Amino acid sequence: VSSDKDCIVFGFSHFLGDIIDCIEAGGGALKAVVLNVPETPYPGRLSLRERLHRLKYKVPVFTFDEWYPAHWTPDHLRWQNYVIGFSGSQMKPLLGRLKELCIPFEPLVHQTAILQKGAAIGAGAIVNAGAIVGPWARIGEHTILNRGCTIGHDCVVGPYGFVSPGATLCSHVTLGENVKVGANATILPDVQVGSDAVIGAGAVVLEDVPAGVMVAGVPAVVKKEARKP
Amino acid sequence: VSSDKDCIVFGFSHFLGDIIDCIEAGGGALKAVVLNVPETPYPGRLSLRERLHRLKYKVPVFTFDEWYPAHWTPDHLRWQNYVIGFSGSQMKPLLGRLKELCIPFEPLVHQTAILQKGAAIGAGAIVNAGAIVGPWARIGEHTILNRGCTIGHDCVVGPYGFVSPGATLCSHVTLGENVKVGANATILPDVQVGSDAVIGAGAVVLEDVPAGVMVAGVPAVVKKEARKP
Amino acid sequence: VSSDKDCIVFGFSHFLGDIIDCIEAGGGALKAVVLNVPETPYPGRLSLRERLHRLKYKVPVFTFDEWYPAHWTPDHLRWQNYVIGFSGSQMKPLLGRLKELCIPFEPLVHQTAILQKGAAIGAGAIVNAGAIVGPWARIGEHTILNRGCTIGHDCVVGPYGFVSPGATLCSHVTLGENVKVGANATILPDVQVGSDAVIGAGAVVLEDVPAGVMVAGVPAVVKKEARKP
Repeated sequence: VSSDKDCIVFGFSHFLGDIIDCIEAGGGALKAVVLNVPETPYPGRLSLRERLHRLKYKVPVFTFDEWYPAHWTPDHLRWQNYVIGFSGSQMKPLLGRLKELCIPFEPLVHQTAILQKGAAIGAGAIVNAGAIVGPWARIGEHTILNRGCTIGHDCVVGPYGFVSPGATLCSHVTLGENVKVGANATILPDVQVGSDAVIGAGAVVLEDVPAGVMVAGVPAVVKKEARKP
Repeated sequence: VSSDKDCIVFGFSHFLGDIIDCIEAGGGALKAVVLNVPETPYPGRLSLRERLHRLKYKVPVFTFDEWYPAHWTPDHLRWQNYVIGFSGSQMKPLLGRLKELCIPFEPLVHQTAILQKGAAIGAGAIVNAGAIVGPWARIGEHTILNRGCTIGHDCVVGPYGFVSPGATLCSHVTLGENVKVGANATILPDVQVGSDAVIGAGAVVLEDVPAGVMVAGVPAVVKKEARKP
Repeated sequence: VSSDKDCIVFGFSHFLGDIIDCIEAGGGALKAVVLNVPETPYPGRLSLRERLHRLKYKVPVFTFDEWYPAHWTPDHLRWQNYVIGFSGSQMKPLLGRLKELCIPFEPLVHQTAILQKGAAIGAGAIVNAGAIVGPWARIGEHTILNRGCTIGHDCVVGPYGFVSPGATLCSHVTLGENVKVGANATILPDVQVGSDAVIGAGAVVLEDVPAGVMVAGVPAVVKKEARKP
């Protein structure tokens, strides 16, 4: 049996357990994982197969070419919901390929997340458990709002971003594309953060952050240029 | 149609979207905005009219004298619930006038906020989405507890205060009147904060804070006297 | 009338109001408090009797020997759910005695807490209001996760621990036995914290923490050896 909340996840992610919980808490199931590159082992963490083995049901793993047979038409792609397993620049090569296929991504919002009035979640974005998105905040495509983070009213979060657990964006904060906000970081009202910037864990950001830099500390200061994409 | 959760908001607030969401999440609607002073434009933010335009229903805006005709008796004032749109010293002149009229303010608590056993919320106070108020905590009149903040058991928060998003008050914390707690700040157990004090964003407050000062940092130290009211 | 959520609490705790709220929010009631040592008065805080007096029903207080008459068999102990009122080394002497009696402790999880898929809560652990426990996280026996804290996926929290309000553990964090995490502290992914360590309020922990030390600051550094147990 398939529910209309069943999802296919692209790419391996250490965040996979959270994605599965978002899917299942909404009454769906993970139907398949599609890997475009081989999984990179990570010391002390479970492999993809070990993670999937913890589920009560069997989840097939495909390579991209196995999953997408030459005879498929766009109609085949509309049978499912699709989720990207990782964020930022890592997903871009795969995402280009998926956009060519016109994959109809949906946002994936955990049932315990709070979306206040007028909040808009982009295609393929993930809002994890207990996250709060304030009124009229706009979250970009394929951005991840992790467990228990707080987004203020009228914030604009760009695409391919990642807001870590417990982070707090006050009102009217603007994040560019591919911005990473560390765990429990705080960004004050009206602050603008440029694309590809990284906000360190626990940082308290009082002033605008230029594109491509890494800031940290209380109050946050520039530590270095962030890695070029 | 009018529900008993319909509200009239006094004063313009950039926080208006949150107030509306608190009202609507409880099944009510915003029936009118009453301005006592002309709105101050703020660069890069929407005007009151633009904010109201985002609603699916029309909300009239009155001056105080338009809204309160000379022939009204106290009975007219009991038809509605009333909310103050801003906090602290800004609201005081208006509030004096409203108190003379014996306006029956109700607390406005978002339906996703968590009020633990014995928690008491003062008249006209606002508890925003995902805020948690611990057992037997007492929140003063017209105080705002913003999105995702956490108030410990047996805390006493004075009137006209503002607790910003993500802030954490441990147990038995006492805040005087008109105290502002910045985003994601932390106040340790048993700490007493004097009236009109300001706690900076991300500050970690280990010791009592005298009235009228501004503290910031980890651990928090006095930065300056707060603006005289 | 007794519900199967009714609980007996062992030991006095300033956290008692939260424990009662966890019990009552789940439809139960506090049936008795059993003190093994005399209560220590704490300046400016309510006594146990004053706390119990705030309830709408009467709660008897027993000494251990009053509560456990010589003629009781193990069957008598199965009538109730049991909760420990305090955490860490304070509870150990009492806990030894209770383990001899084979007291069947249950975890006590507030109904507003979020347990994600595969999360496992140990016997006698308490998860307070609004806490979020990520997928496949494992929480040890008699550990307290306080109001609004966030535990990442695949974390392992040891027994007799205490995670304070608003603290954030990222994914794959490991805490040993009897670890105290201060309010609003942040622990980054994959960090391992040794037994009996103390993480200061607001600390941002980037690196492993040895057993028995106290760390604080942003980023966290070792301040001193923690008190010997």
